Amino acid sequence: MSDQEKLTHFDSDGNAIMVDISTKSVTSRTAVAAGEITMNRQAFEMVRSGSMAKGDVLGVARLAGIMAAKKVDELIPLTHPLLIDSVTVDFSFDPERCAVIIEASVTISGRTGVEMEALTAVSLAALTIYDMCKAVDKGMEIGAIRLLSKTGGKSGAFRRE
Amino acid sequence: MSDQEKLTHFDSDGNAIMVDISTKSVTSRTAVAAGEITMNRQAFEMVRSGSMAKGDVLGVARLAGIMAAKKVDELIPLTHPLLIDSVTVDFSFDPERCAVIIEASVTISGRTGVEMEALTAVSLAALTIYDMCKAVDKGMEIGAIRLLSKTGGKSGAFRRE
Amino acid sequence: MSDQEKLTHFDSDGNAIMVDISTKSVTSRTAVAAGEITMNRQAFEMVRSGSMAKGDVLGVARLAGIMAAKKVDELIPLTHPLLIDSVTVDFSFDPERCAVIIEASVTISGRTGVEMEALTAVSLAALTIYDMCKAVDKGMEIGAIRLLSKTGGKSGAFRRE
Amino acid sequence: MSDQEKLTHFDSDGNAIMVDISTKSVTSRTAVAAGEITMNRQAFEMVRSGSMAKGDVLGVARLAGIMAAKKVDELIPLTHPLLIDSVTVDFSFDPERCAVIIEASVTISGRTGVEMEALTAVSLAALTIYDMCKAVDKGMEIGAIRLLSKTGGKSGAFRRE
Amino acid sequence: MSDQEKLTHFDSDGNAIMVDISTKSVTSRTAVAAGEITMNRQAFEMVRSGSMAKGDVLGVARLAGIMAAKKVDELIPLTHPLLIDSVTVDFSFDPERCAVIIEASVTISGRTGVEMEALTAVSLAALTIYDMCKAVDKGMEIGAIRLLSKTGGKSGAFRRE
Amino acid sequence: MSDQEKLTHFDSDGNAIMVDISTKSVTSRTAVAAGEITMNRQAFEMVRSGSMAKGDVLGVARLAGIMAAKKVDELIPLTHPLLIDSVTVDFSFDPERCAVIIEASVTISGRTGVEMEALTAVSLAALTIYDMCKAVDKGMEIGAIRLLSKTGGKSGAFRRE
Repeated sequence: MSDQEKLTHFDSDGNAIMVDISTKSVTSRTAVAAGEITMNRQAFEMVRSGSMAKGDVLGVARLAGIMAAKKVDELIPLTHPLLIDSVTVDFSFDPERCAVIIEASVTISGRTGVEMEALTAVSLAALTIYDMCKAVDKGMEIGAIRLLSKTGGKSGAFRRE
Repeated sequence: MSDQEKLTHFDSDGNAIMVDISTKSVTSRTAVAAGEITMNRQAFEMVRSGSMAKGDVLGVARLAGIMAAKKVDELIPLTHPLLIDSVTVDFSFDPERCAVIIEASVTISGRTGVEMEALTAVSLAALTIYDMCKAVDKGMEIGAIRLLSKTGGKSGAFRRE
Repeated sequence: MSDQEKLTHFDSDGNAIMVDISTKSVTSRTAVAAGEITMNRQAFEMVRSGSMAKGDVLGVARLAGIMAAKKVDELIPLTHPLLIDSVTVDFSFDPERCAVIIEASVTISGRTGVEMEALTAVSLAALTIYDMCKAVDKGMEIGAIRLLSKTGGKSGAFRRE
Repeated sequence: MSDQEKLTHFDSDGNAIMVDISTKSVTSRTAVAAGEITMNRQAFEMVRSGSMAKGDVLGVARLAGIMAAKKVDELIPLTHPLLIDSVTVDFSFDPERCAVIIEASVTISGRTGVEMEALTAVSLAALTIYDMCKAVDKGMEIGAIRLLSKTGGKSGAFRRE
Repeated sequence: MSDQEKLTHFDSDGNAIMVDISTKSVTSRTAVAAGEITMNRQAFEMVRSGSMAKGDVLGVARLAGIMAAKKVDELIPLTHPLLIDSVTVDFSFDPERCAVIIEASVTISGRTGVEMEALTAVSLAALTIYDMCKAVDKGMEIGAIRLLSKTGGKSGAFRRE
Repeated sequence: MSDQEKLTHFDSDGNAIMVDISTKSVTSRTAVAAGEITMNRQAFEMVRSGSMAKGDVLGVARLAGIMAAKKVDELIPLTHPLLIDSVTVDFSFDPERCAVIIEASVTISGRTGVEMEALTAVSLAALTIYDMCKAVDKGMEIGAIRLLSKTGGKSGAFRRE
């Protein structure tokens, strides 16, 4: 089994550790993640028209996503505290499937990657949309949360096919 | 449009508010949510065998889920602080699809429901699995995060069909 | 000196304590606080027109205020953790003085008042406006942060004259 | 409109973003902010004499201010996590106006300024004084919260006139 | 093995859970814990004389202890969020052993006990003393952290002999 | 009195400050701390056999320790926010005294040491063991929390004799 293929968050006895990143170099790193939340037609139209009229669901969800990216080290036990350089959270719409598509991008100049920050921003943005629309639709579903791309760091670039 | 069908987190001018729950009654409430994370065969086998040998991925993810349920009011902007009475996070396996199934259950005796707590527990458990397995598989996908059931409160029981 | 007139957060030796509220009754309590931030004309016009065009400064500030009300027990050392029932943060404009007026209202059914929650919501809303406008005006000033009214609890209603 | 004069926390569509600071250089930066809280004579004398006798209000407020400076990235949505190098919070008295003057100074070696940290330290110190004196005076007012000076960074030094 | 004698934080499969307290009754509960930190003579004299002259180590440590009691549900994974009614942290001196004795008392009207809150207050007060004195003595030792007494709740009173 | 021998967390007037570390150099630093918790035979055997059968007390305690190391700047008032590079928490057993021995190691590349992070990890691991075993033994005692060694930084290496 190659080094690459071990569960790096455990030592040789299987005990959880925060991996030592002190010998990794400080490089510019980015990660882009995406996800979606599907809902019924009524909720979807409310969200889509929201910023104009009755309440900006996506404005609130965007902030929740950005703020969550800053809290990853509190939320995911073995992650490192990081000094994130930027976060953006964007939304687009798939009207056929009544889906709101969420994409988050995070950059850092640091010793470890920001995949978890991007994925967590997407997740909390989706959960916040759920929270704000649940009076209208309790059957919403959050899915397709995945890493789209990653640059920087020794393991090289990743791009989802 | 019925009362039930408005976006309750906004006032009549479209401004975000934390909804007033002071007139809602304190009742026993539960929520059960589920989700899954799919991964490649190698990562899946590592997770499934983990608690016996090389590192208990699901033990860490369970704690992350439970702890996240306690932080919902910090993470989702318009939610209320709550005194959760219990949280459980359980895992099962779908070997054909290499999927880890996550189910979280939350109970409270309070003035508002705990859907967001259950959904957030599932999401953070999934993100933690992602974090711990990402050295082996960067192509994992988190999905099917949804409310399975809900009891208690004026809006009555909900059960996903 | 009456009981009312002591600094209640210290014991008889002058040591800081978290006051015992266990014998106070659970009643419905409200607090309303206000404040303002004054800025130059350019910044003021940007904030006032913001929700329509270039960025909703007040939407962000409102969320910051609401979320801060939930964190008071972490921020002000001797306060009690509370289960807030509602928070609203509203803005109005004084064009002559280029002032944004902030008003926050908090309600609870609990053993102690929510003045600090309302005042903290106002303060963080103001600081967030400062943060978002500081590229345009570094000379802004936050002021007039005060309690407007308070109901519920043994000490009776308070209304600022 | 110059670059300097835009609301930098929004993208060109008016969506909130955490500004990318990855290309800004790491320099030594300082910020000094001030504010005040005015109260009635009785409360003022208690605060002023406090450290000697009945309870050190300002000692508690100073810690609250210092600790708040470390939490700015949790409190103000679009700020960056920062590694602050030092914080001081000092108090002086204006007996004529029964005002406690608060001044906070923050330094960092980093990619972005610490104005918000200094302003937040002042604000939370003032709110803590309010909390501790509110049994004696509910009519206190917090004001004059402003940036006094700022050094370091591309935008150059700022000194309030 | 009696019910009392199981590790209650695990289900029958050995998975960690947050225990369900929804059927426990709300009663008045107290817990008192103690601990100590021993240091060299020089550090001890500085701490003991501190509040008068060069810096109030114990005033800072007291606040750290009180604030930590409010954060137990974030720090200890399977604990419940609680609405603490009061916390006190007191210090005394054993000059012969150069020990600072710490005692914390916590009360609540709630569904579960506050032992962990009292023990955590003691621990963080001790750690804060360590932090503030470590420039003078790196060999300090924290010990004798234990529950002194506990009242309220079904399991009855406990008093350490 | 040498520079080394002052209480560095206070200014010359005895006011608490967060010490300025901006002129200290970024070096590789480590700290190792230890502690123990003693309990009755029944609890001890449950903890020791736990990972195999009825619940992995030490797995939960290890995570609590690691996560606490990331929260030191929130818990100990005058500490600096830090970017920890690694944390490990290990356990061993002293069956004669029914003691679980805890050892935590923290590394950083930064401007100040990580003693407090290592000591806090040990303390929270111990408190978590207490929490999980308290249904079986309320008389447990946490002790011998001390710094074992420290490297890096101007004050040089420390090794407890």
